[in-house]
Amino acid sequence: MTTITAAHTQPSDVQIAQAHHVEPMETIAERAGIPAKALIPYGRNKAKVDVSVLERAGVGVPNHNPADPTPPQSRMGTGRLVLVTAMSPTPAGEGKSTTLIGLADALRAAGRRTIVTLREPSLGPVLGMKGGAAGGGYSQVVPMEDINLHFTGDMHTVTAANNTLAALIDNHIHHGNALGIDPRRITWRRCLDVNDRNLRHIVTGLGGPGQGLPGESGFDITAASEIMAILCLARDHRDLRERLGRIVIGQTFDRSPITADDLGAQGAMAALLKDATLPNLVQTLGGTPALVHGGPFANIAHGCNSLIATTTAQKLADVVLTEAGFGADLGAEKFFDIAARAGGMRASAVVVVATIRSLKFNGGVARADLHRENVAALQEGLSNLTRHVRGVRKFGVEPVVALNVFTSDTAQEREAMRAWAADCGVRMAEATVWADGGAGARELAQAVGEVLDSDDPASSHPLYDPSIGIEAALDTIAREIYGAADVRLDTVARRDLAFLADNGWDRLPVCVSKTQYSFSEDPSALGAPEGHTLHVRRLLPRVGAGFVVALTGDVMTMPGLPKAPAAQRIDVDEDGVISGLF
Amino acid sequence: MTTITAAHTQPSDVQIAQAHHVEPMETIAERAGIPAKALIPYGRNKAKVDVSVLERAGVGVPNHNPADPTPPQSRMGTGRLVLVTAMSPTPAGEGKSTTLIGLADALRAAGRRTIVTLREPSLGPVLGMKGGAAGGGYSQVVPMEDINLHFTGDMHTVTAANNTLAALIDNHIHHGNALGIDPRRITWRRCLDVNDRNLRHIVTGLGGPGQGLPGESGFDITAASEIMAILCLARDHRDLRERLGRIVIGQTFDRSPITADDLGAQGAMAALLKDATLPNLVQTLGGTPALVHGGPFANIAHGCNSLIATTTAQKLADVVLTEAGFGADLGAEKFFDIAARAGGMRASAVVVVATIRSLKFNGGVARADLHRENVAALQEGLSNLTRHVRGVRKFGVEPVVALNVFTSDTAQEREAMRAWAADCGVRMAEATVWADGGAGARELAQAVGEVLDSDDPASSHPLYDPSIGIEAALDTIAREIYGAADVRLDTVARRDLAFLADNGWDRLPVCVSKTQYSFSEDPSALGAPEGHTLHVRRLLPRVGAGFVVALTGDVMTMPGLPKAPAAQRIDVDEDGVISGLF
Repeated sequence: MTTITAAHTQPSDVQIAQAHHVEPMETIAERAGIPAKALIPYGRNKAKVDVSVLERAGVGVPNHNPADPTPPQSRMGTGRLVLVTAMSPTPAGEGKSTTLIGLADALRAAGRRTIVTLREPSLGPVLGMKGGAAGGGYSQVVPMEDINLHFTGDMHTVTAANNTLAALIDNHIHHGNALGIDPRRITWRRCLDVNDRNLRHIVTGLGGPGQGLPGESGFDITAASEIMAILCLARDHRDLRERLGRIVIGQTFDRSPITADDLGAQGAMAALLKDATLPNLVQTLGGTPALVHGGPFANIAHGCNSLIATTTAQKLADVVLTEAGFGADLGAEKFFDIAARAGGMRASAVVVVATIRSLKFNGGVARADLHRENVAALQEGLSNLTRHVRGVRKFGVEPVVALNVFTSDTAQEREAMRAWAADCGVRMAEATVWADGGAGARELAQAVGEVLDSDDPASSHPLYDPSIGIEAALDTIAREIYGAADVRLDTVARRDLAFLADNGWDRLPVCVSKTQYSFSEDPSALGAPEGHTLHVRRLLPRVGAGFVVALTGDVMTMPGLPKAPAAQRIDVDEDGVISGLF
Repeated sequence: MTTITAAHTQPSDVQIAQAHHVEPMETIAERAGIPAKALIPYGRNKAKVDVSVLERAGVGVPNHNPADPTPPQSRMGTGRLVLVTAMSPTPAGEGKSTTLIGLADALRAAGRRTIVTLREPSLGPVLGMKGGAAGGGYSQVVPMEDINLHFTGDMHTVTAANNTLAALIDNHIHHGNALGIDPRRITWRRCLDVNDRNLRHIVTGLGGPGQGLPGESGFDITAASEIMAILCLARDHRDLRERLGRIVIGQTFDRSPITADDLGAQGAMAALLKDATLPNLVQTLGGTPALVHGGPFANIAHGCNSLIATTTAQKLADVVLTEAGFGADLGAEKFFDIAARAGGMRASAVVVVATIRSLKFNGGVARADLHRENVAALQEGLSNLTRHVRGVRKFGVEPVVALNVFTSDTAQEREAMRAWAADCGVRMAEATVWADGGAGARELAQAVGEVLDSDDPASSHPLYDPSIGIEAALDTIAREIYGAADVRLDTVARRDLAFLADNGWDRLPVCVSKTQYSFSEDPSALGAPEGHTLHVRRLLPRVGAGFVVALTGDVMTMPGLPKAPAAQRIDVDEDGVISGLF
């Protein structure tokens, strides 16, 4: 969603989407190079893509020749990957998805076979603060109402698998606890795709001996579940099943790890997730095929859409655009160090979305005053964007800054941006995708296209090698990306590290859970804070996902609702037309 | 699911379903009289039926003439309705769905245009005790794996709407509680489609002032949510939206009721449930169209599939078969007094499914010994079936007893059944639908057909008129159906009744929450107990659903898992083939 101070009147996002004439799924699939028999329809304008049919058909770029003698498995996709990330956001977001979608439509208009890959929106934020997460204005994926609500049910499927495991844990203890699980050391939490602060810390099993053993528990939002991370990092359904079995749910009384496999939960979870591993095909308003699949948050999880969607798209298209959640410190770092490493992917270009509003916000302007011209604050806030640009270069890619233009931006502010870009030696292009769709991203598409064409083969790389160990990895991320002076592990985190080392899990990549508002763990430290300490509270094994989560600050794994939730504005009329999503 | 002591070897339910060659959805839709443009595909062999397209097309029996001048809304369906219910079950169930499906296939083979309407399975029992709830053997609805797992997502949708309301309640209190909700008098619970006893009684909102107000709460299984009842009793989406707004979530400090509408939750819930109101079309193994829609439990809710599915089917077919959960004391009573009243439906025939196993169980035989011949116990247990037959007659319909034959049944036992039927003057037919599909229900189809043809117009009626008040309604049900001597309201229930009366809700039908194993509230009182007292613990308004729930005994609204849950047997292989469902 993009919050715009509109000088001219434009219909709401949901109105624009409803007025749009969608193209038939068969047309979109053909445009993507997906054979009709690989489409599994879900509703009238959504489909899952049966990737096994694609593989059997030998679908791949550059040729679609089924007689190609190369075994399909060994044929890597050759589509060039564009990662879209952002500077540190305001609470309203910088229009990253919106820019990505407009850019994709512009690249396609320029003759490049393009596929968009995006994350699925989470119901919690849609009904909470955001009101929608499928782009905005004339740069959306459609059908936006379905995508924003239940879509093809993947989120609910993850919820079901997650909570089945939770029920099996408590049930095992209730029926005698043959495995000797220490109820005080269960780390597996339940999840729901809702913003509900009251579920963060709960006590379960009350009411007497027939109601289970009382114990502390809590709910995370579904996007934060390890199962969501597994869905997004698995190469295929077989890999998913194996990863599910490796999930560590806690420890025994003698401190040995207990896995989902120990509880016999692996098969049922894999069965529940059978269809969820298939990418969902929809379309942008510009008619570009879009695979919207997987929905982790980048502050509390790794924040990228599924590997299966991205690698499938790379086999089909010349250019694939994918998004990394929040600022580049979170999204891009996790993309390169976790997702790209897991999937053997390289990005050929990185787009850093910036807004004049967010620059002024990072320069100290209050949210209520962001619509007023303030070149001094803008220049102050550019320290944030500069830090992100330098960070992206550390992954071996030259960034392109996309200035997502708002109607409140002034000529002086835009001129200040151009001067900064020239000073920095960074490519920058303005984009008016909210108001103009793909036509508003022509200049940006040209800049991105130049980078794509010059970066062959793709040269991106991770920041660190996990074999250096978790402490060194944290130190590298904190210094190189966050501008921190050092990392401090709390007592409990030190104990966690010993447990990880005992079990051979201290050479996994690190997924830092950190506020999206600052390079530090303090959300009020805007701009480009330096010399701070990163305090790590916990280090939790996510063996199924293949990383270790480092909790810093007080980031919530279950959001709350604001005082006036978006849910109270959403409605549906007698003809089934939904309003209030934007 | 039917548990069979198999003398001959038959493949498992999931194997039979997977070996079956399904017919294209277009063929099934055409067979049902549903125009192709009304089909919304969900996966390859499932579709939602867009009822508004049916209405616009003027689809209805007896003619499908779009030029028919009668306004579609005023044209009631003329399909004859067959209600399938059962005697008091064993914990394994009596094969009610299995018998219904086989009977439907037999009726269709006999030349009657037939549609099946069934409830959607709940994941909790599927992963808990049952392992599947889409019929059994050669009488199933397919694709059984999809139907048993997430199907088209309706259950998850109900979960999302239910928990959005819960989050809005606690959020309102957290942000100042302008409505003055008494946190101790919130009756709205959360829900999940899982068997998890540890979630029955919980404390939420722990962790300090940022995490909400601490309070008691709990989760029900999704099938027990009032939203599921609303989905199943709403006439259309508009009616659904109004019912959602009427939901009572608790009381203020001055004891006034608070509704979902007071919290502004109505529109968002209606938007979340937009597609869930559309019936789901699948097929039986015999190729009969099946609308599987809505999934309330009959012990803790009203237990019938959606009105929308049944009334739609009645407009399309000559014969519609629908199922009422558990024994006739629960399912049939609630069908006639709640669902049929709400939908203006009449049943033309009632099938009471009985098994020799269950008769012996009701005659005092232990579960482990049910496969052994025991004519004396069978005769003792017939008191249960006799009571159900008499109960069904009180709704103005002549029942047909379907003896669902198991391979362990002996000739002497079957002969004793026939003698009982002759004595009672009740039509009875044996059915071997598990082993033989529709071919195993020819005799039963003939008996049912005779009743259908003789009952014109349909003569069924409710047991009581809600205007007599809740106490009188309870008394009528208890005496007439349960064989009880009297009804006693506990102190809290008396207080509840005063609250209902104060708000004008004491003239609603009553939905009794009672064990399915006995006519009394004591699950160990098998057979046909008499002269007992029905103790009512609570009387809770379900104003959205349009009934008052009377809690008796200690029926759980959230089941637990058994020591060896079905989940531990379920798996999926590399080709995506699921095993362990049956």
